[in-house]
Amino acid sequence: MKKYMNNMGVLAKKASRKLLQMDTNSKNNILEEMAKEILNNIEFIKKENEKDLQKGREKKLTPAFIDRLTLTDERIKNMVQGIRTVINLDDPIGETLSGFRHKNGMEISQIRVPLGVIGMIFESRPNVTVDAAVLSLKSGNSIILRGGSDAIFSNMALAKIIIKAGKKRGLPDGAIQLIEYTDRSCVNELITMNNFIDVIIPRGGKSLKEAILSKATVPVIETGAGLCHTYVDQYADLNIAIDIIINAKTSRPGVCNAMETLLVHNSSISNLLPILGEKLSALGVELRADERSIKYLANAIPATNNDWSTEYLDLILSIKTVDSIDEAIEHIDFYSTKHSEAIISENYRNTQKFLREIDSAAVYVNASTRFTDGGAFGFGGEIGISTQKLHARGPMGIKELTSVKYIIRGNGQIR
Amino acid sequence: MKKYMNNMGVLAKKASRKLLQMDTNSKNNILEEMAKEILNNIEFIKKENEKDLQKGREKKLTPAFIDRLTLTDERIKNMVQGIRTVINLDDPIGETLSGFRHKNGMEISQIRVPLGVIGMIFESRPNVTVDAAVLSLKSGNSIILRGGSDAIFSNMALAKIIIKAGKKRGLPDGAIQLIEYTDRSCVNELITMNNFIDVIIPRGGKSLKEAILSKATVPVIETGAGLCHTYVDQYADLNIAIDIIINAKTSRPGVCNAMETLLVHNSSISNLLPILGEKLSALGVELRADERSIKYLANAIPATNNDWSTEYLDLILSIKTVDSIDEAIEHIDFYSTKHSEAIISENYRNTQKFLREIDSAAVYVNASTRFTDGGAFGFGGEIGISTQKLHARGPMGIKELTSVKYIIRGNGQIR
Repeated sequence: MKKYMNNMGVLAKKASRKLLQMDTNSKNNILEEMAKEILNNIEFIKKENEKDLQKGREKKLTPAFIDRLTLTDERIKNMVQGIRTVINLDDPIGETLSGFRHKNGMEISQIRVPLGVIGMIFESRPNVTVDAAVLSLKSGNSIILRGGSDAIFSNMALAKIIIKAGKKRGLPDGAIQLIEYTDRSCVNELITMNNFIDVIIPRGGKSLKEAILSKATVPVIETGAGLCHTYVDQYADLNIAIDIIINAKTSRPGVCNAMETLLVHNSSISNLLPILGEKLSALGVELRADERSIKYLANAIPATNNDWSTEYLDLILSIKTVDSIDEAIEHIDFYSTKHSEAIISENYRNTQKFLREIDSAAVYVNASTRFTDGGAFGFGGEIGISTQKLHARGPMGIKELTSVKYIIRGNGQIR
Repeated sequence: MKKYMNNMGVLAKKASRKLLQMDTNSKNNILEEMAKEILNNIEFIKKENEKDLQKGREKKLTPAFIDRLTLTDERIKNMVQGIRTVINLDDPIGETLSGFRHKNGMEISQIRVPLGVIGMIFESRPNVTVDAAVLSLKSGNSIILRGGSDAIFSNMALAKIIIKAGKKRGLPDGAIQLIEYTDRSCVNELITMNNFIDVIIPRGGKSLKEAILSKATVPVIETGAGLCHTYVDQYADLNIAIDIIINAKTSRPGVCNAMETLLVHNSSISNLLPILGEKLSALGVELRADERSIKYLANAIPATNNDWSTEYLDLILSIKTVDSIDEAIEHIDFYSTKHSEAIISENYRNTQKFLREIDSAAVYVNASTRFTDGGAFGFGGEIGISTQKLHARGPMGIKELTSVKYIIRGNGQIR
């Protein structure tokens, strides 16, 4: 396994050097060929996907899991649409970020370059195979993909199609590779191949990410942990509050930008909670409330301390009363995963305070946390939502898959 | 020890929230007071430094080590000068990097924010205590400093002075902290305190950095590994080549941007090496040459394979003959630490190829690699030179100690 992974690393690194020399038109031609060949092979993709689905049903995977695993005609066409969006994005590579002439005459420029080789570890969602490969290629990187074992047939089919299509148009050998073994030891190799891999991007559950962080020596970008809060201030417009809370909690409860905890200023609980509680209950949301707020909720159960630190990813909402915006900020500071938080308020000073002091990737005033994604922020695709502060923060588009270098043109300068 | 470190983490994080609210003038006032108090305490600093020096002489530390450890009046004044340079730098915090109005009316901006809490682990150079604390404060970060044990008295004295001075002007408790225990277990705690620390920046030897990388769960920025190459092309101006090589090798051999390996195109060896070799030998440089080049060098010894991967940090130079620019690039790609590389050439195509294909933080045409530092690049101070591609690459100034966040102002938008 070590040798198999090492070979992949060598190939990926070689390919990344060839990608440095590839212009935007060549990359777009490759991407267009991939889009075409996916459309030409819809039946094959669905046939291979069916093998995964059958295994999944035998393993009694949950309906939600099976749903994410399923490729339909429409979903395959959406993947192709995604490729065409990426074709239309500006190429970030080669952009001059800054430049000046040194007083000794040297010209110093900082330019944007690819990261090099990306190691991507993701859950059993086959569309990520294509999304990640495409974003990686457009930003001039090689990528080694490791998808969830329950999607292995789908991933192999998609990887085979896009690699074969790409090679027809000059995709370098090794620029896109899929790990075909589902053995965990492959991951352990991947995350310690510092000679070949420049960054590891894990997507998926908390335990996977913690295992990777504790063993990785290659730099890791953490993505997608989303324990998001909404704080309803003393000065909130309660109609806005109700709309936003319902949207943030119920429009898609399983995603990372969904809201998990509602904080309410004590002066707002009696006006807000009876109406809000009724509406949320009608939408099937389970409410877990603290001592002060539970009195105003018809169907709530008492919250425990554990609730404040739980990302439900489900139709469950925890509700806590606070006595001040400072208490709200402190609660968020302690429990948040630093993804997205919102304040509902018409008070200028409080909104400014919240925007300044909340240390999360996206901080909202009077809007739903559900907007935190690459699409809404105008990046075209996204490879994940970074919840760490180093390198990239928030939705990661192709710019976030780049690094910089300095180039210096002199004529004999010495120091 | 765990409790001691944990307390530091809690304090640092609290302080980092207070720093978010501090304006530039307040930070500059604190820095000015630190500068003044260092000047007021020169005798105390030298007395404490003498304790370290005495221990060092008893331990028979090398003269170079003792030299780096020594604080003189002039060096202390240089530290103060460094603080005043940082005072004059623009504050990066709060800068709007991009912003637009979403089609639904929300205003989305990406703004620059501090990283939060920095853990800095460094060698026995007491000036780093002050440099790092000052850059960290200007960029709105808390910092926990862990200096080499041989400089502990000097570091404690300097930390005591700047913290006391800072507090007079409103420096938050815990914004600057020095680990006073020299126990290695402190480091192991520091690099795994993900709840409190946002980034670890290690400076120092290779073994220290490898130990940190293998154990850290907090993101690490690697700095300062510098196996730098200069390639003399077939089309080089040999006078320029000689000046640059002598400068890059001998002006300060112990630093990371000094040159370690010279690559020479076979068509240039007979003209370049006899003259160059004589000059380098006269300057005390030991030459280790491959089979083809050694014939043109009066005082060289044969290079072994080990030489190509050794960062000497000393008056030693390895010399290798190559048959093409591609061979030079491949050699660099394999052995370089991705710090700084130079080509000496008057050929347009070759210089363009080298700039594009060499994957290092700084790539030079016809100039000495010695220019890679924050001063030369116009950043004022520097906290290290990143040799990784994530987050920061090349000299790290105060901008590299920042992150970003998105702030979104809406009026009830839902998705």
